Amino acid sequence: MIVRKLKDVRKSDKHVKSKGWSSTRLLLKDDGMGFSFHLTTMFAGEELHMHYQNHLEAVLVLKGNGTIEDLETGIMHELAPGVMYALNANDRHVVRPATDILCACVFNPPVTGREVHDENGAYPADPQLGKEPELTD
Amino acid sequence: MIVRKLKDVRKSDKHVKSKGWSSTRLLLKDDGMGFSFHLTTMFAGEELHMHYQNHLEAVLVLKGNGTIEDLETGIMHELAPGVMYALNANDRHVVRPATDILCACVFNPPVTGREVHDENGAYPADPQLGKEPELTD
Repeated sequence: MIVRKLKDVRKSDKHVKSKGWSSTRLLLKDDGMGFSFHLTTMFAGEELHMHYQNHLEAVLVLKGNGTIEDLETGIMHELAPGVMYALNANDRHVVRPATDILCACVFNPPVTGREVHDENGAYPADPQLGKEPELTD
Repeated sequence: MIVRKLKDVRKSDKHVKSKGWSSTRLLLKDDGMGFSFHLTTMFAGEELHMHYQNHLEAVLVLKGNGTIEDLETGIMHELAPGVMYALNANDRHVVRPATDILCACVFNPPVTGREVHDENGAYPADPQLGKEPELTD
């Protein structure tokens, strides 16, 4: 059994901050769960263009408000506590937080923790999956 | 992209209640994400003996307090908002909620939604994984 406290992980190198968001990785690939589990904040006023070409992701909003635009369909959805979105088709999307948005995120395959978002707003594939990593910025 | 609101799923057959807990399944196996994603309440004063022999599970406590006892080691851990536990070794465990505990749960492989906890506190294996399901109560 693995037991971790968010406040401890936030002080570790599993807490990462980038432009527009910060993320605390409670579980990563090395934990062997077959998924990674993150608590992420997307910052108010940002416009986050994302396209996870190598991962499926589910996001449950815990706090905050904003919108997500599905760039595949052009449809805009409201984000509020209790809204869950799942990128089941590697959907290109834009999140526009009106306030800071705190959310619980699950990635499959699991994030290794060594990725950075590349120029397409993606995480590169895990090299161990036999794909070439994308260019990283 | 799948978008679901907790309040809507709670009104559907994806909201299940059993002895000691209730669970809203935001994502199930049929959603094709490779994991299932649940928002679960464990009720104050209950003693939940669980042993997921066929699934790995991660749990992030969002609200409430209690304890989890790892029956493999005998170690007791406090549960409070921001505590995450991961049953990475199909660990037998007991949760004792002092208050109602609200948590976000991830299962791998995904729960189909048709399982019930069997007499060992487990979910049976997905028959499509080629294992025999456990006895169900």
